[in-house]
Amino acid sequence: MKLSNRILALKESPVRKLVPIATKVKKTGKKVYHLNIGQPDIKTPEVFMEAINNYDTEIIKYSFSAGEPVLIHAIQDYFKRDGIIFDEEDILITNGGSEAVTFSTIAVCDPGDEILVPEPFYTNYNGFTGEVNAVIKPITTKAEEGYHLPKKEEIVKLITKKTKAILFSNPGNPTGTILRLDEMEMIAEIAREYDLFIISDEVYRGMAFDGLEGVSMGTIKGIEDRLIVLESVSKRYSACGARIGAICSHNKEFTANILKLCQARLCVATLEQIGAAALYGLPNSYIDSIKTEYQKRRDIAYNSLSKIPGVVCEKPTGAFYFIFKLPVENAEEFIIWMLEEFELDGETIMIAPAEGFYATEGLGKNEARIAYVLDEVQMTRAMYILEKGLEAYQKVNN
Amino acid sequence: MKLSNRILALKESPVRKLVPIATKVKKTGKKVYHLNIGQPDIKTPEVFMEAINNYDTEIIKYSFSAGEPVLIHAIQDYFKRDGIIFDEEDILITNGGSEAVTFSTIAVCDPGDEILVPEPFYTNYNGFTGEVNAVIKPITTKAEEGYHLPKKEEIVKLITKKTKAILFSNPGNPTGTILRLDEMEMIAEIAREYDLFIISDEVYRGMAFDGLEGVSMGTIKGIEDRLIVLESVSKRYSACGARIGAICSHNKEFTANILKLCQARLCVATLEQIGAAALYGLPNSYIDSIKTEYQKRRDIAYNSLSKIPGVVCEKPTGAFYFIFKLPVENAEEFIIWMLEEFELDGETIMIAPAEGFYATEGLGKNEARIAYVLDEVQMTRAMYILEKGLEAYQKVNN
Repeated sequence: MKLSNRILALKESPVRKLVPIATKVKKTGKKVYHLNIGQPDIKTPEVFMEAINNYDTEIIKYSFSAGEPVLIHAIQDYFKRDGIIFDEEDILITNGGSEAVTFSTIAVCDPGDEILVPEPFYTNYNGFTGEVNAVIKPITTKAEEGYHLPKKEEIVKLITKKTKAILFSNPGNPTGTILRLDEMEMIAEIAREYDLFIISDEVYRGMAFDGLEGVSMGTIKGIEDRLIVLESVSKRYSACGARIGAICSHNKEFTANILKLCQARLCVATLEQIGAAALYGLPNSYIDSIKTEYQKRRDIAYNSLSKIPGVVCEKPTGAFYFIFKLPVENAEEFIIWMLEEFELDGETIMIAPAEGFYATEGLGKNEARIAYVLDEVQMTRAMYILEKGLEAYQKVNN
Repeated sequence: MKLSNRILALKESPVRKLVPIATKVKKTGKKVYHLNIGQPDIKTPEVFMEAINNYDTEIIKYSFSAGEPVLIHAIQDYFKRDGIIFDEEDILITNGGSEAVTFSTIAVCDPGDEILVPEPFYTNYNGFTGEVNAVIKPITTKAEEGYHLPKKEEIVKLITKKTKAILFSNPGNPTGTILRLDEMEMIAEIAREYDLFIISDEVYRGMAFDGLEGVSMGTIKGIEDRLIVLESVSKRYSACGARIGAICSHNKEFTANILKLCQARLCVATLEQIGAAALYGLPNSYIDSIKTEYQKRRDIAYNSLSKIPGVVCEKPTGAFYFIFKLPVENAEEFIIWMLEEFELDGETIMIAPAEGFYATEGLGKNEARIAYVLDEVQMTRAMYILEKGLEAYQKVNN
């Protein structure tokens, strides 16, 4: 009785694996500021629970496999605001963005097939692809270049007969980078030339700063048949625990096949879909307010970080993350030390080691990711603790 | 740009594929009694929505990847009533029983590995295994034998080097068959001798008639390390749309690895877990009342069916299904004809063609499944319509 090689090969989530240490530390009375996980502190808009509490049903029935029509229509309207027209059957509701990635991978890859992914990337892409035997081929991007894409020739070098798709998050997790229009056009061009699917994970769309738009790949022309857009209410609407996402594509053969996966698992939780429909119905002004709030926090975090000697960090323009180089050899050891050994008036912080965001062996060892999901006062304090902790750590280690 | 072979190979759900025809027919004003899908008409216990409405939170946060402790504890207590002791970390909450099957398959099978499954089986097992490239090897069971297991030598003949597990639902969907103790002991013996995992899908547990118990595989000794029990609130608590299930196992290496899959997809919907915890907290008297109700319906359906000339059907003892042979060549054609061509005072019925419940080519063509999920009055009427429809169909086709 042996477990499968594919499950044994999966690594623990780097974002979650240090949680037991934090839990133990908190039991001693130490306060831990959590910047390690993308769990926003912003209140979920009240329309979510209102819609659920007003939902009148005596039986919590199966929903439609493709999703509740009221939610699908709300997502259609959300895209329409940017001139992107999806038919009703182009949108399939999923258990969060997570299932959207897994289903897309199953649909475009057989075991051993490859997907290009700019690294550092959302670490759970490893799980979603590895558990169904697809292989991530990383396109390495660099802190010094603000994690923007390398030149076309660097990317196409990585393409083999087994390459089926290019997958990326935009705005990016963990980089906070927003793709420029010329990068999006380059991706489209490569996909057309090498006949690839484009899987555009847009769960942070709208969270774009400094006047940037963070446009959808859906606005790029000439890739309608090969574009798969992934959506989620988790971040934009601060509803991570709702687990509502979507797969959107104009490719009818693709969506018809994804529907088979949806039918197998029957449906997504009915109540949460009702709540999510209300979230998508919120006006653009809601998204603007979120954007303003996160931009303030980003500024606090960036201003602190950029003053710390030895830290390498470009100013990110989207999502609510950034990743940076620390002046330490091993970021994970530093993070554990911050939890277990360090405190400032009984407080410390937890951030995420970045090695797990890279597929290339050896990269990211001295990098970490911050999610700026705490309010201004707490962010200021947390960044101060990081600065002081780093000072102390360097003394101990020299 | 080609979709993967694995997704193209998946078949549409036989339970859901005729739904568009039913939808069209209903638009003409014809009433359709739905016996095709396991969607109970019984009210979801009010504690479910009460718990959700009383859940006090301003942010719908990620839940724990393993599940909400309150729900895990409630499931522990549920098993404890039958003397089955699971530790907290032995139970992982999943998106319905569906995800529980998929995750178990990923954990025990690499691509090409095999799972033994008695057929006819829950048709979505095809999807859950096929989408991750595991292969179902059917153990054929027969209507004439009440769909009980064949002798041990028939089963072990099917085992190869690639066989990793035996998977079955008990009480059975679509058969309504409850395994006898000697069958459960035989499965345990085979698993020990051939070093297999046992995946026991017990989502219909408690729904056992005629004084039968419908005991869990968890009560069988000597298989603790290889037993995986799958749970769900969908049927027993009439909460299909909640999508709450669980994987339960004493094998700590297995659950530690399943946790990696749970972490990748972050968590299961938070609110629904709160509601589900309340459901598991219901006393045994709730399950008894459900049992009484379904037994009445089974009797109505069985009494009607057994009178129809040419129908072959053993009396099922559990779940809320049975499958039977029809005196027609092609059950699917008959079912479509019932929808499109037949009516009795403006009413007809929809049942599920059974071919999709078999993996062996050619089996089940003249069989159909009924889910007795309507109340006594409606069941009586629906069965009468079936009888009359069959009479008329045979006249047309002779």
